[in-house]
Amino acid sequence: MPTIPESHHALLKRPHGCAITTIAPSGLPQTTGMWFLFVDGAIKFSLLSHRKKYRNLLANPACTFFLMDPTTMSNTVEVRGTATIEPDPDKAFVISVRAQYGYDSPPKDGPDDDRYVITIEPSVVNVVGGG
Amino acid sequence: MPTIPESHHALLKRPHGCAITTIAPSGLPQTTGMWFLFVDGAIKFSLLSHRKKYRNLLANPACTFFLMDPTTMSNTVEVRGTATIEPDPDKAFVISVRAQYGYDSPPKDGPDDDRYVITIEPSVVNVVGGG
Repeated sequence: MPTIPESHHALLKRPHGCAITTIAPSGLPQTTGMWFLFVDGAIKFSLLSHRKKYRNLLANPACTFFLMDPTTMSNTVEVRGTATIEPDPDKAFVISVRAQYGYDSPPKDGPDDDRYVITIEPSVVNVVGGG
Repeated sequence: MPTIPESHHALLKRPHGCAITTIAPSGLPQTTGMWFLFVDGAIKFSLLSHRKKYRNLLANPACTFFLMDPTTMSNTVEVRGTATIEPDPDKAFVISVRAQYGYDSPPKDGPDDDRYVITIEPSVVNVVGGG
């Protein structure tokens, strides 16, 4: 399994927004800005069950992460792969994501919303720049 | 055809890097950081004929543009659509892209490289934030 080189780990640990792309039922890529965590070498993010991205991933697990260092376009990380979906029933994961971005409260999810942890199993990793 | 609301035009005219996604032969989304121009309401960027993105678009014109305001994650623009490909034989287009990003010289393309102008014909436009 390809791994993200150490040169770009520091970039992945700063609270930047990333671009997560799934494939919509139309076949077009759907890209959204997301918070994420870089945990034990893996890219993980949180989704609510009513989100289109979640439904896209149930139908097609193809998922690509892209991060551009906002201070310079020269540093980027792309992780292309397959999403695995696990429940986050006590919201422990989403709370840890929010903490990384400076929020110490749980999200205000609706009563019918379920939280899931998405982990990208990488097929391709590309980095640009020195990190 | 959906259009990008005026609220986000100023963001699109600043020289930020965007994320361009095509679909690789594997079926996975391929995302790369790109320079672009916002011209007459359309998203346009330049590609060399040897780039994987160019070959992806020849096989499948599905193409998604995503821009996140680097000063705040709250402003984003997504344009999902179909790429049209036109030649840029005198490099006039790529020179205008480079000018937007502060470079007043033509790109150093190889002798076997052809330049193309990619324009996204939008199927879906999504904006987040106030622009």
